[in-house]
Amino acid sequence: MEKYIFELDFKVRDYECDLQGIVNNANYLHYFEHTRHEFLDNMNINVLELHNQGIDPVIARVNMALKTPLTSGDEFVSKLFLTKEGIKYTFHQDLFRKSDNRVVAKAKIEAVTIINGRLSRSELFDQAFAPYIKA
Amino acid sequence: MEKYIFELDFKVRDYECDLQGIVNNANYLHYFEHTRHEFLDNMNINVLELHNQGIDPVIARVNMALKTPLTSGDEFVSKLFLTKEGIKYTFHQDLFRKSDNRVVAKAKIEAVTIINGRLSRSELFDQAFAPYIKA
Amino acid sequence: MEKYIFELDFKVRDYECDLQGIVNNANYLHYFEHTRHEFLDNMNINVLELHNQGIDPVIARVNMALKTPLTSGDEFVSKLFLTKEGIKYTFHQDLFRKSDNRVVAKAKIEAVTIINGRLSRSELFDQAFAPYIKA
Amino acid sequence: MEKYIFELDFKVRDYECDLQGIVNNANYLHYFEHTRHEFLDNMNINVLELHNQGIDPVIARVNMALKTPLTSGDEFVSKLFLTKEGIKYTFHQDLFRKSDNRVVAKAKIEAVTIINGRLSRSELFDQAFAPYIKA
Repeated sequence: MEKYIFELDFKVRDYECDLQGIVNNANYLHYFEHTRHEFLDNMNINVLELHNQGIDPVIARVNMALKTPLTSGDEFVSKLFLTKEGIKYTFHQDLFRKSDNRVVAKAKIEAVTIINGRLSRSELFDQAFAPYIKA
Repeated sequence: MEKYIFELDFKVRDYECDLQGIVNNANYLHYFEHTRHEFLDNMNINVLELHNQGIDPVIARVNMALKTPLTSGDEFVSKLFLTKEGIKYTFHQDLFRKSDNRVVAKAKIEAVTIINGRLSRSELFDQAFAPYIKA
Repeated sequence: MEKYIFELDFKVRDYECDLQGIVNNANYLHYFEHTRHEFLDNMNINVLELHNQGIDPVIARVNMALKTPLTSGDEFVSKLFLTKEGIKYTFHQDLFRKSDNRVVAKAKIEAVTIINGRLSRSELFDQAFAPYIKA
Repeated sequence: MEKYIFELDFKVRDYECDLQGIVNNANYLHYFEHTRHEFLDNMNINVLELHNQGIDPVIARVNMALKTPLTSGDEFVSKLFLTKEGIKYTFHQDLFRKSDNRVVAKAKIEAVTIINGRLSRSELFDQAFAPYIKA
């Protein structure tokens, strides 16, 4: 039983590694964001177009565990599923190293929607995400 | 009673803002890291020199709440204090916008030390941090 | 005779260093951009506000020589002066390491202005930069 | 007659766009670097392994023209060929937007090799690149 609803392949880019020779911790948030935005892209939702309409999904909270550092040359897969609580969506996002399927990182990332500068319920996301919400 | 033991001033750099016109979430981890490394620098501890000796402090967990988005032109102060549990240090790091002292972000960031590739107790950090540990 | 018209102090942030232990080449463009935007900020010109008015200064060409790599802990000063040719402004931007005043990098960065999607002459920049243009 | 010897597909990641809604200029250097490193990877040359042997290819000069800004959702292909002059290799790197094949950016990027801290001729690169050098 696979709980994930979307996945995306990545390969580490060397500029993402810092002076310790491993991927800098901030880049995991980039990987997670790009995965979410590609998930949206698959539903024909583009974050720049939303922004130009005054709709901005933003991150309210990140809870992330880094288990196995990625380094130069590593390939990995980024997977996500989605839960909802009130007006908040939580993206459950995990990264797995391809060479051995080890867990690289596990995160819960809470997103809310700002519409014309105010925290708001988003019809758009409610409809788009409805088929994917875990009870 | 101020609990913080170190602080550092920042100003948003425009390249840190994304297409929503606010600081991209990943950059908060950059701000936190730079604050920690300047805290170490004040104790004459340099992370590149440590790396060249086989000692790498790494982040194991991040728990971060983003309260008020930073945008172009914003100045803010980054403050931290430190707690210890076993071989793990937790950096409690908060950002405050200067114009109104609002909380921008609050994080708990857990760091461990890898020595020659193995998770290890670090004498260096134990001694350096001893004066700053909250009971 | 000092030709520069603006300068800004920096210190390397460790996350700007890559796996070679030196500042990644892309970050020099970040340093240059932040210097230009602080130069504008000093004249009360904010790039986000301009963007919201449909005015976008953009980079058309970069010619950059990297002379001395920056590394963890380095402090440096970023200096610029400005020339004009037609509708194009060229920022002459140089970085100097503070410890020994060595040249870190030298760049010529050509900027043009896009107004409502079209390459345009900018009254705003023409007036703001007039006092600073080298003949 | 196609002059390019290597190419790599990319898609813009939204975090690469800045507050103007287009890819920030510094990220083009990231795209170019990742293309070069994947070119090396195809020859089983890994820049982190080289660094650990005291061999660091570094960028000495960048000459880059930005023709068409990339934005959210854009796919593009990055192509390169290589020339040599003395101990310096020049990577000729061009980006093309996939939707219409327009030129996004054109760059000449000069690389030299530092071995144990000194500018040096690199046997490794001389041999690896020999089949690809344009007369």
